Amino acid sequence: MSFVTHLECSATGEHYAADTLHNLSRAGKPLLVRYDLEAARAAVTRDAMDARPTGLWRWRELLPVRRDENVVSLGEVETPLITIPRSSGGNVLVKDEGRLPTGSFKARGLVMAVAMAKELGVRTIAMPTNGNAGAALAAYAARVGIETIVFCPEDTPEVNVREIAAQGARVWRVNGLIDQCGAIVAEGAAAGRWFDFSTLKEPYRIEGKKTMGLELAAQLGWRLPKAIFYPTGGGTGLIGMWKGFAELEALGWIGPERPRMYAVQASGCAPIVRAFEEGVEHAERWEDAHTVAAGIRVPKAVGDFLILRAVRESGGKALGVGDPAILKAVDDCAKKDGLLLCPEGGATLAAYREALRTGEVDEDEEVVLFNCATGLKYPMPEAPWTLDRTQPIDWDRL
Amino acid sequence: MSFVTHLECSATGEHYAADTLHNLSRAGKPLLVRYDLEAARAAVTRDAMDARPTGLWRWRELLPVRRDENVVSLGEVETPLITIPRSSGGNVLVKDEGRLPTGSFKARGLVMAVAMAKELGVRTIAMPTNGNAGAALAAYAARVGIETIVFCPEDTPEVNVREIAAQGARVWRVNGLIDQCGAIVAEGAAAGRWFDFSTLKEPYRIEGKKTMGLELAAQLGWRLPKAIFYPTGGGTGLIGMWKGFAELEALGWIGPERPRMYAVQASGCAPIVRAFEEGVEHAERWEDAHTVAAGIRVPKAVGDFLILRAVRESGGKALGVGDPAILKAVDDCAKKDGLLLCPEGGATLAAYREALRTGEVDEDEEVVLFNCATGLKYPMPEAPWTLDRTQPIDWDRL
Ligand SMILES: Cc1ncc(COP(=O)(O)O)c(C=O)c1O
Ligand SMILES: Cc1ncc(COP(=O)(O)O)c(C=O)c1O
Repeated sequence: MSFVTHLECSATGEHYAADTLHNLSRAGKPLLVRYDLEAARAAVTRDAMDARPTGLWRWRELLPVRRDENVVSLGEVETPLITIPRSSGGNVLVKDEGRLPTGSFKARGLVMAVAMAKELGVRTIAMPTNGNAGAALAAYAARVGIETIVFCPEDTPEVNVREIAAQGARVWRVNGLIDQCGAIVAEGAAAGRWFDFSTLKEPYRIEGKKTMGLELAAQLGWRLPKAIFYPTGGGTGLIGMWKGFAELEALGWIGPERPRMYAVQASGCAPIVRAFEEGVEHAERWEDAHTVAAGIRVPKAVGDFLILRAVRESGGKALGVGDPAILKAVDDCAKKDGLLLCPEGGATLAAYREALRTGEVDEDEEVVLFNCATGLKYPMPEAPWTLDRTQPIDWDRL
Repeated sequence: MSFVTHLECSATGEHYAADTLHNLSRAGKPLLVRYDLEAARAAVTRDAMDARPTGLWRWRELLPVRRDENVVSLGEVETPLITIPRSSGGNVLVKDEGRLPTGSFKARGLVMAVAMAKELGVRTIAMPTNGNAGAALAAYAARVGIETIVFCPEDTPEVNVREIAAQGARVWRVNGLIDQCGAIVAEGAAAGRWFDFSTLKEPYRIEGKKTMGLELAAQLGWRLPKAIFYPTGGGTGLIGMWKGFAELEALGWIGPERPRMYAVQASGCAPIVRAFEEGVEHAERWEDAHTVAAGIRVPKAVGDFLILRAVRESGGKALGVGDPAILKAVDDCAKKDGLLLCPEGGATLAAYREALRTGEVDEDEEVVLFNCATGLKYPMPEAPWTLDRTQPIDWDRL
């Protein structure tokens, strides 16, 4: 069912064998999974794909899992596209990834990585997380019985930490940021204690994440929007979608047109924005990173050059937005359009509104924003109103 | 598109006009919406239904909304069916309603009721809620610009209360239970301050909820499971599904077979269980109601006789489960199958396990449990583990 042929270093192009365990390439760069797309093209048509049940596993020919018994699932539904006319002021669809298992798009990457870990016989996994990835890993690993240890920054939202533990993983709060959690994972992996599941150091998460792009094309009737705004931390999703679009073109299912890709970061942690503006290929570590949008608080991304390449090739940009604009966007979208975004999703809306203002996008252009997690996982303002029903009610106050 | 003909008193059968505002019938009982199912049968085939995009609005012919411009949507996806082999010990599918907008099945009822409120020109709505219904109402009402006031018991989970407020509704914590919140709503409605949206007092929520049953039949290839375990508070979902099955049979899309319907309640608030066991038609108010499963803490349900009738006709039962069994079921399901249930969903799993033990269900029988909300909205145990990365790491402790 899978047409995987080999893995390839994203920097040097060097080939690596499929069906064995890998982390980074010898050059220290992410590995990309390659398929025999000619054979896949002969095996499945666009119409056949349309006739399948929607959901992530419909894309089997473009995914690395070989054997049916290794497919794991908690119901990876096709996520809906939702209009937000009043808060966006433009022709915007929000792809609401909060509908996936464990409430975030991290389920896409982790369902694939865990299925491959099962296929390749991994027994113990460790991973750094800003919260959502750890929750998704814990859920799938619990399901297949793989032992899991997760490290997160100490200010990771309480609900995320508890969710990870509830799903049977061991979770440690670390006094550091995500890359420092990653250093602990790397050290343990080097000592043979576990397999390192860090994003882009593990080659299969990106294959799961690319289904955001495949699914979007199918949902829109095999075309793509004019622009995509994506909240960018490690950037796996953006890199994955870009890879997925190329695969769809190779299959002959879409043409050469691409959306402008906008990588959205918080101005308190914007290494990709800085590198984009400086015109360089790699991003320096961002010191003193801070933002309400914890998922995109990634000071240093191993796939920085892949993000920057995709953004530049697409004619898009890397954009920074401040926390006040993020919170305002979340509030407006909930109150005007009834959709509660996560802060990272709010960042894309804030960036979109700014891009409208500057003329970077046109209000008629079809644009897709990614809301990568349910807004329910994040702190909301207090609602302190109480009513004593044993007293006469002051109706006009209600 | 809609084939609605009239509304009918669920107790006396008396007819009421469609396309005008209604609450309870003159007999003080819920009104049920009726359709010209002969005409619907001629207008749409089962194959035509299969060819439509999945999701709640595919059922237009069996829904009350007449005009397209009144359809409101936040992406009511078809919710997935998930196996939980390890924690259930049987042939169980969980229908995970937590994937709907605002994270619960209440979205089904409220999207319909709000669309009808829009169609019928309602300007202000009030409603009592245990949390989830209020969140769904707030979201849809915000989207169509209807003013909303919500009353909830004072110990309603914080996240629910905040979510309601975040989505622009006014929300009041009341020192009482759900039926006492309902009394305030009724009083304000009588004074003409707002329209009363209480479950089953408003005739359209049940039409939305019945889509759980329609969807289940479609998902299983136009057959039904042997048994359904449903967490029962007001019982709208159970009554709705039962109504939906009859409509599908009238269309000729399913046969006369029905699942045994198990109404699951918490033993700390089990008025339906008591009435079922006493063989009576109506349930007395349950005093001193208490349970961790706030959604099913409903001491007195206006549709009690409809719940009891459906359960008895189906050959099912009303079952009570204690809080410790509920919490154990939630914990097991998360740790063994990677699925975090809400406590109400946990109650169905606890009841199923008990039913397996007593031989009430067989481990091979296909059974569907309803997990009516995402587990993320509920308190989870603390996860207190911290790691100081500036100190040497004790690896064996991790
Ligand atoms: C809600 C949310 N949005 C966005 C991101 C960033 O995703 P990526 O690593 O693909 O850049 C994350 C990552 O943690 C996240 O949790
Ligand atoms: C999570 C959850 N489960 C079950 C119920 C009970 O639903 P019904 O009113 O259909 O009996 C509720 C109602 O609040 C709920 O929130």
